[in-house]
Amino acid sequence: MSDENLSTERLPELAKEIRDLLERQRLVEQLVLKQDSLPERHDLVETLVHKQHLSRLSAKLESLHAADIARILELLPLQDRLVVWDLVKAHMDGDVLLEVSDAVRESLIDAMDTHELVAATEQLGTDEIADLAPDLPDEVVQGIYKTLNPEEREQLRIALSYPEDSVGAHMDFEMVSVREDVTVEVVLRYLRRLRELPDHTDKLFVVDREEHLRGVLPLNTLLVSDLDTEVGAIMDADPKRFSPDGEAREAAEAFERYDLISAPVLDADGVLIGRVTVAAIVDFIKDRQDIERLSQGGLRVEEDIFASVWNSLKNRGPWLGLNLITALIASRVIGLFEGAIEQLVALAALMPIVAGMGGNIGNQTITMIVRALATGQLHEQDIRNLYIKETKLALINGVFWGGMLALVTFLLYRDAALGGVMMLAVTLNFLLAAAMGVTIPVMRARFKRDPALGSSVLITAITDSGGFFIFLGLATLFLLH
Amino acid sequence: MSDENLSTERLPELAKEIRDLLERQRLVEQLVLKQDSLPERHDLVETLVHKQHLSRLSAKLESLHAADIARILELLPLQDRLVVWDLVKAHMDGDVLLEVSDAVRESLIDAMDTHELVAATEQLGTDEIADLAPDLPDEVVQGIYKTLNPEEREQLRIALSYPEDSVGAHMDFEMVSVREDVTVEVVLRYLRRLRELPDHTDKLFVVDREEHLRGVLPLNTLLVSDLDTEVGAIMDADPKRFSPDGEAREAAEAFERYDLISAPVLDADGVLIGRVTVAAIVDFIKDRQDIERLSQGGLRVEEDIFASVWNSLKNRGPWLGLNLITALIASRVIGLFEGAIEQLVALAALMPIVAGMGGNIGNQTITMIVRALATGQLHEQDIRNLYIKETKLALINGVFWGGMLALVTFLLYRDAALGGVMMLAVTLNFLLAAAMGVTIPVMRARFKRDPALGSSVLITAITDSGGFFIFLGLATLFLLH
Repeated sequence: MSDENLSTERLPELAKEIRDLLERQRLVEQLVLKQDSLPERHDLVETLVHKQHLSRLSAKLESLHAADIARILELLPLQDRLVVWDLVKAHMDGDVLLEVSDAVRESLIDAMDTHELVAATEQLGTDEIADLAPDLPDEVVQGIYKTLNPEEREQLRIALSYPEDSVGAHMDFEMVSVREDVTVEVVLRYLRRLRELPDHTDKLFVVDREEHLRGVLPLNTLLVSDLDTEVGAIMDADPKRFSPDGEAREAAEAFERYDLISAPVLDADGVLIGRVTVAAIVDFIKDRQDIERLSQGGLRVEEDIFASVWNSLKNRGPWLGLNLITALIASRVIGLFEGAIEQLVALAALMPIVAGMGGNIGNQTITMIVRALATGQLHEQDIRNLYIKETKLALINGVFWGGMLALVTFLLYRDAALGGVMMLAVTLNFLLAAAMGVTIPVMRARFKRDPALGSSVLITAITDSGGFFIFLGLATLFLLH
Repeated sequence: MSDENLSTERLPELAKEIRDLLERQRLVEQLVLKQDSLPERHDLVETLVHKQHLSRLSAKLESLHAADIARILELLPLQDRLVVWDLVKAHMDGDVLLEVSDAVRESLIDAMDTHELVAATEQLGTDEIADLAPDLPDEVVQGIYKTLNPEEREQLRIALSYPEDSVGAHMDFEMVSVREDVTVEVVLRYLRRLRELPDHTDKLFVVDREEHLRGVLPLNTLLVSDLDTEVGAIMDADPKRFSPDGEAREAAEAFERYDLISAPVLDADGVLIGRVTVAAIVDFIKDRQDIERLSQGGLRVEEDIFASVWNSLKNRGPWLGLNLITALIASRVIGLFEGAIEQLVALAALMPIVAGMGGNIGNQTITMIVRALATGQLHEQDIRNLYIKETKLALINGVFWGGMLALVTFLLYRDAALGGVMMLAVTLNFLLAAAMGVTIPVMRARFKRDPALGSSVLITAITDSGGFFIFLGLATLFLLH
């Protein structure tokens, strides 16, 4: 039993060894280039050593799982990555491409020609080819198409026809199906004739002659049943199943709630067209989590940490541009009250507090609502109650935190009226934040947009400009003459 | 085939029906209370209708999966929730408690007495009891302990002994194991003698007499092998396996990368002590995702949307308090420069732009680094390169966006020097943001803290105060006399 299995933590170490090896190699090569007056023999020795290292590395790579090779490639800077990618055996190429992150996949595909790319997909299922297809050049996709048989072409067409967030885009076609009128013994004999079962086969699909699903037969049931029992008597006739047009998010929730491993996908007539496995669902959950994190951090797509400065600029630009606009608007709001600030300069020091705390309250409300929307926990009838509850919370928080700030303000500036304006402004901005914190995600959901994306930017823009306006406006009304 | 299986979307509708039903019921009861002068017969009729409704509801609930009942309970306001909870059959109580969210679980447990709670756990495995235990009153846990046999007590002790983020806390004990010197036929006969197999049994564990793991036998291999083959000849002798002290996060990554359904957990001597299933891993991934989302939104724990205002206040208070402190610090930084603002009031309008855009850059950098840290993509040797790359990015972005802002500033205020200060301040704050954006998560990771939590608050605090200081300081140096 090798240690490697106990931890994937060893991969970074392996990647580091590879980097050090290639670094030394390059140093030696530079030395050789500089001293080309050296006797040829020395040169030859170096080349041999190089080849030896690379072939040992190549053997090492072959012993690894495609997912591990993918991870090592992600861990290497571009130059080293391409050296290692060349060493990966061609029959692994497809699996590795499937496993690497989008950014790294792009760099690998760029380094391959059409012929290599077509060859790389030979070992893949049609659902896997469909996953890669959007990243491949057109002529490669056409080349792959020619290598498929008619049934596979049809599967590829189906897999490519569903949008990314539908169940259809995440299904595969590796089903084992049986008839309901055969016995357990016949099924067992049938299975033994197959050389192997597809990954994640936890159940057989029971279909009639027209491929309508009649039920499913879990392997766990099959294994504990008497040999002469008929499939129809022990199958689950009412299993969890999905439509290819259903939302992948909903399927993920069902897999989580009902602890599914695989489930049939049926068309509108109840014909079995594919299956979804928990592996596809786990990938989907992780991908969504990633998208959400990136968007909240102000990045468009994931970034290869070895990406060029130029690629990073393109990735981060849009959010900075958006931020520039919202910041300019807030700045113009302040500009409206320059007269007030000139008269009472303390306003300039206090106004960011009002804006910042409003943003905090708004983000809290939005997080809670987005979560409730995601779990379907919000009914129309609750929304009114939510406004009432959040308003109450904003009022209590406003009076409490606003009161604290009023006190601090009084201690700093010895101005009771300024403290009062502070408290009132904080409370009003909290109310604005609470109202918009409910409204923004509810509206986005109603217009079928993902309420999690972009809501935070919007609420912060509103509580900033709103906070400045409320605070400086109140100050103008009550403090100035 | 009922429609219910096609979509979990019907649950919110069902919850709404229940709420409407209970609402009507309460209206009728109020009516009856008010008009207690009515003939007794009418009263009786109403009571009968009520009972009929509730018993129909009870029957409906019994046909649902525990996870679905849990979801309906989450969808109901407290009052209705407790009515429905009373209708749930006692033998389902434990499974439902396992499935509901933490906040709702608390409200259900509060409504039960010790006897009911002990009874509720009767159908649960020891790993499931361990999941519930932290939420149960002490006397209940002691009561449960008394109902267990010595082996179960030992399992419960083991399950409770591992910290939440270790593999041990997520394992269960439902393994089927076989010896390596028996034939496939014997194994199949042995399995048929069991009444059922545990959920998520995709492989049998092959152990010796001392329970050392010798390998695993996937059901998929078992089913396609000849009846007279010995287990030892077809088992996987080097399967992915975990240590109970390993990090759950790492196990989750391995499950995702290698598409595992279940995997053995071994102690230091290689003795099989439990297994981890993909169901536990999916729950773990979702929980972590939740914690991250809540923390980023400034909430301590998940909030039942029907939670009392008081509970919400407690949940949201700490972040508001933290925000108050960071905002006050930023405010005092501005306070240092009140003289400058008095002389040139445009500074007050422009300073939030410098602070805000710095925060945006800082958050982008942090998101990227946290992600690279989470996937183990960062080596020591890369960190220096990262500083260089992020510094370059900050410089280019600073000159570009700072230049845009300088232009806008000039157009607004007709002051070229002010524009120049703006550009310089934006660039310097971007450099500060980039440096801290790398340093904060790297430091947190080095001190073994989760780099994802709290980093965003910290960077924003730094870029706010830093941005104000840099901008107002430069203005004082270059613009004032």
